[in-house]
Amino acid sequence: MSDQITARLKDMGISLPDAAAPAANYVSYVISGNQLFISGQLPIENGKVAVTGHLGKNVDVATGQRAAELCAIGILSQAKAALGGDLGRIKRVIKLSGFVASVPEFVEQHLVINGASNLIANVLGEAGKHARAAVGMAALPLNAAVEIDAIMEIA
Amino acid sequence: MSDQITARLKDMGISLPDAAAPAANYVSYVISGNQLFISGQLPIENGKVAVTGHLGKNVDVATGQRAAELCAIGILSQAKAALGGDLGRIKRVIKLSGFVASVPEFVEQHLVINGASNLIANVLGEAGKHARAAVGMAALPLNAAVEIDAIMEIA
Amino acid sequence: MSDQITARLKDMGISLPDAAAPAANYVSYVISGNQLFISGQLPIENGKVAVTGHLGKNVDVATGQRAAELCAIGILSQAKAALGGDLGRIKRVIKLSGFVASVPEFVEQHLVINGASNLIANVLGEAGKHARAAVGMAALPLNAAVEIDAIMEIA
Repeated sequence: MSDQITARLKDMGISLPDAAAPAANYVSYVISGNQLFISGQLPIENGKVAVTGHLGKNVDVATGQRAAELCAIGILSQAKAALGGDLGRIKRVIKLSGFVASVPEFVEQHLVINGASNLIANVLGEAGKHARAAVGMAALPLNAAVEIDAIMEIA
Repeated sequence: MSDQITARLKDMGISLPDAAAPAANYVSYVISGNQLFISGQLPIENGKVAVTGHLGKNVDVATGQRAAELCAIGILSQAKAALGGDLGRIKRVIKLSGFVASVPEFVEQHLVINGASNLIANVLGEAGKHARAAVGMAALPLNAAVEIDAIMEIA
Repeated sequence: MSDQITARLKDMGISLPDAAAPAANYVSYVISGNQLFISGQLPIENGKVAVTGHLGKNVDVATGQRAAELCAIGILSQAKAALGGDLGRIKRVIKLSGFVASVPEFVEQHLVINGASNLIANVLGEAGKHARAAVGMAALPLNAAVEIDAIMEIA
């Protein structure tokens, strides 16, 4: 199964970067029983927040979706680190919480977070179908346009 | 027990609509072990978002509470679908996260989310007493005034 | 282990107040299996919200960190009540969700929530290292500057 996931990632042109480590007194993930909790991931590319600002102001939906994809890649990178490199140990993505920096008039947070939902479903198949919430924030750390955290069931 | 819940719903004049299905690559609920995770529910009535806008601007507390009640009805509808029609299988509502679209001056998110907390406690009794968070958002999908997600322990 | 935690709290000059009870149809914590879910805690001191307003407006980062510490003390107080007084029963803090009332230009929510992450790691040691999310809110109940909820694994 992990081979299949690796093949899908390759087909999609996605390489998972080394999981970023937090610069503070918290960790990127915690395993509790058969649940894996992943810290909120920002849209990082080449070590930097790649999409900054607010939806409805200086970030359009397509760019927001790209940010959500980068958050999803961060989530998969952390899961890979947590699971000894084997994404096949993900039995089910339980929940994504999608936070979208938004001006008060922007009301398409669900379309933005679809960027992450689609990527994760495409990479993981049935195991990637998750519950989720998508909400609009006043602002996010480092001016990120999107932040997403995750809970997974693991084998 | 499910009979008692059905009777309470009837007494309260609540009919649970068919659970709405998401229009994207995610699902309305995930069961993991004995936990049921329900996606963020909007205040839907007759298939449409019934309460739109921001608390402190064009939505007052009473209307916000009504929106929260509709979110709670959505949560119960999803739970009913997840549990084969039997809400008696809910052992405990573990957590509600209540997101309230708010102008910066509105600081009564807790009163708004009480609309959901009261409804769920009234319908489910002791099993309905939950931990929760109530917070104010810049905006929500489809201009909804309230969104609420849930975690439940099930039998 | 609990003696060690008590000693650390004393060294840090922290006394845990009696856990505050909610004034509504929800509860401060729910135990489900070996997980403890704690409701969103506000920065309470002497029974009142001690830090009000928005980061980037009338609350600076240092004051926001102090608010986050008070939220963390509230979380530990609730955990103590939930665990019969024995914080040594905390096997692991799984996740903190940190909500920071923010103007749109404020983008250091992570630094604010470090106030809570540091306190919990200092009190609980390895068991205190948690996953987390830090996000910026339009507003919070009672005009609190910070709200934090928690999930813990317990023995």
